[in-house]
Amino acid sequence: MGSTAANRAVDKGVDFANYFCTYGFLYHQKEMLCDRVRMDAYFNAIFENKHHFQGKTVLDVGTGSGILAIWSAQAGARKVYAVEATKMAEHARELVRANKLQNLVEVIEGSMEDVTLPEKVDVIISEWMGYFLLRESMLDSVICARDRWLNPNGVMYPSHARMWMAPIRSSLVDQKKSDYEGAMEDWNSFVNETKTYYGVDMSALTNPFTEEQRRYYLQTSIWNNLHPNQIIGTPVIVKEIDCLITTVDDIRDVRASISSSITEENARLCGFGGWFDVHFRGSNKSPAQQEIELTTAPSEDTGTHWGQQVFLLHPPQRVQCGDNLTFHFSMSRSKDNHRLMDVDLSCEIRQPSGKLLPPFQKKFYIE
Amino acid sequence: MGSTAANRAVDKGVDFANYFCTYGFLYHQKEMLCDRVRMDAYFNAIFENKHHFQGKTVLDVGTGSGILAIWSAQAGARKVYAVEATKMAEHARELVRANKLQNLVEVIEGSMEDVTLPEKVDVIISEWMGYFLLRESMLDSVICARDRWLNPNGVMYPSHARMWMAPIRSSLVDQKKSDYEGAMEDWNSFVNETKTYYGVDMSALTNPFTEEQRRYYLQTSIWNNLHPNQIIGTPVIVKEIDCLITTVDDIRDVRASISSSITEENARLCGFGGWFDVHFRGSNKSPAQQEIELTTAPSEDTGTHWGQQVFLLHPPQRVQCGDNLTFHFSMSRSKDNHRLMDVDLSCEIRQPSGKLLPPFQKKFYIE
Ligand SMILES: Nc1ncnc2c1ncn2[C@@H]1O[C@H](CSCC[C@H](N)C(=O)O)[C@@H](O)[C@H]1O
Ligand SMILES: Nc1ncnc2c1ncn2[C@@H]1O[C@H](CSCC[C@H](N)C(=O)O)[C@@H](O)[C@H]1O
Repeated sequence: MGSTAANRAVDKGVDFANYFCTYGFLYHQKEMLCDRVRMDAYFNAIFENKHHFQGKTVLDVGTGSGILAIWSAQAGARKVYAVEATKMAEHARELVRANKLQNLVEVIEGSMEDVTLPEKVDVIISEWMGYFLLRESMLDSVICARDRWLNPNGVMYPSHARMWMAPIRSSLVDQKKSDYEGAMEDWNSFVNETKTYYGVDMSALTNPFTEEQRRYYLQTSIWNNLHPNQIIGTPVIVKEIDCLITTVDDIRDVRASISSSITEENARLCGFGGWFDVHFRGSNKSPAQQEIELTTAPSEDTGTHWGQQVFLLHPPQRVQCGDNLTFHFSMSRSKDNHRLMDVDLSCEIRQPSGKLLPPFQKKFYIE
Repeated sequence: MGSTAANRAVDKGVDFANYFCTYGFLYHQKEMLCDRVRMDAYFNAIFENKHHFQGKTVLDVGTGSGILAIWSAQAGARKVYAVEATKMAEHARELVRANKLQNLVEVIEGSMEDVTLPEKVDVIISEWMGYFLLRESMLDSVICARDRWLNPNGVMYPSHARMWMAPIRSSLVDQKKSDYEGAMEDWNSFVNETKTYYGVDMSALTNPFTEEQRRYYLQTSIWNNLHPNQIIGTPVIVKEIDCLITTVDDIRDVRASISSSITEENARLCGFGGWFDVHFRGSNKSPAQQEIELTTAPSEDTGTHWGQQVFLLHPPQRVQCGDNLTFHFSMSRSKDNHRLMDVDLSCEIRQPSGKLLPPFQKKFYIE
């Protein structure tokens, strides 16, 4: 396929330093284990659909502390393979033993991509979702596991996933702008002082410094817990994934052209919020008895550790109820790190009269 | 030599992800360029010792933005080789051009270890010092450059370096203790809730979690700007380095047995502060006209970006004026990352009466 960024071989050591290492800390696993929305969804998905687990073989991709493997065994699985790349595998093994499930759950330390199982499995369960669903690119590993180890009639937990976006208002737009301006003022006095005190003209670096700071303050998406009343237009689905059939090619580049209507009078469009939901529906051949949803949408009371990703619009734009936003969204993997994302967002706003506002086009980084 | 940690080959990609990457940002270079103590020391070292530069060849190891190379050229060097491992090299090249020194300064992008120069040099200048002097292990690269590229009568800038420690008082000891206790309380309610709501007994992980949190809150040394009045005993030199003759073997493990006297009545020994200084003295054969010192010792008004490293003592200990502390200090490289350090510190306190207080022994991590 040639040497495009997407196909570039990933150095395992570098991937560990950049990505896996944080998962080796119990502190980090605990943050996920304390996310009640997340925990309730997986718990209910398993225990309200025991028919998928009773007497079945299960693979937990990225078992971390082992929680999903333990629940699967408690729900009646005959055998659970729990694969974890980091040293967390040792703690998972301990936890399995302490919960007296060592005969049912086998913890395997290794990358999913490298592991060999003694048999195919009936269920693949995994909590692979990153910020805005696809950050971390861990779904790749789940797809790889599915293609190698899932029985023809097997089911995926979760079975479906969706990415959402909505136009929002947010004071972050002013804060980040002012942080950026502060950094640039600081730079300008630095240039002056360095010339005065040390005889070196640093102004040649003003352009690259500006670019660096713009990227950092204005173009990097931000983790945020949005309040529902910050949403000023209809939320739209950017991508739908059927976990049973999706491929890495299908998720490597996400492109969508979508429309949203502004639902507020005289609002300030400050950017877009992005989030995801996943569903546990079983499969066509073996549907769930109880469908479960895990959503990370803005919520008044129940936040998740994923929050939402906010893409800010500088400068913000005045919009009116009924204005129609058409936007083109395109997300691909960062060329330096396949687990991070580059986003292109262009947008046209058409007023109810038919008049078009000047379109804009922005580049963002999900770091 | 066998496969000891110290000899383990370093994966270049991993080293880049863990270490070099931050130096690729102008923001980070600017932090160093805004450190007036640091800047003044190098500036004065160069311009008050022009005889070392006029008509000479200079190598700047890790040139970053190019500042030391530019000064060397402005001080009259015939030729300056400025080596930088990161993309910052491109900005350095721009800066050299903007300051009209492109005929004198040659910026070379690459690891010092891999670079070939067309000639030997008369001066090696470098700002290689990390927290508590040796964190980052960049001196290794300077030593490597010296052994390959310095003329027999060449000089090192800086020429000497010292590590210092002193007994201190610090309210950080209480803060970190309480952070640690908060984290453990949190863990205990987490264990209870996970059992109650999700039927899984997490208590088997209490020990490893405790260890992880102890390491994080109590055993990791802390960046701090100490006030001189926090020093409660005589500062002592832990290590002296002559940059012209030191070897990697000489700095890989730092061991010292040293004594300090408590200089305050009824003080609370909360731990130790560690810092460094370096000197620009030229060499025996070619001494400096003006010796310059760069110190990162606690200071009332002029802090540096290095601050001091604080090693906390849990629990703190009551000491009296005249008490004599004998401590054994041992620092070696972390086995997972040769640029980070493990420290062992044991200490005996002898009162003026001759009575010995119970000795203690602690392990610390410089992360
Ligand atoms: N390719 C891969 N092979 C093995 N483990 C992987 C992996 N990619 C990610 N992981 C692991 O997957 C985990 C994702 S976090 C989820 C942990 C756990 N299943 C829970 O729900 O609480 C991390 O511990 C990470 O180290
Ligand atoms: N082995 C090596 N080869 C080349 N550059 C190195 C190196 N080890 C560290 N560096 C670079 O050395 C720099 C140290 S920071 C000092 C920068 C500059 N000399 C100044 O004084 O402002 C960083 O930019 C880092 O990327």
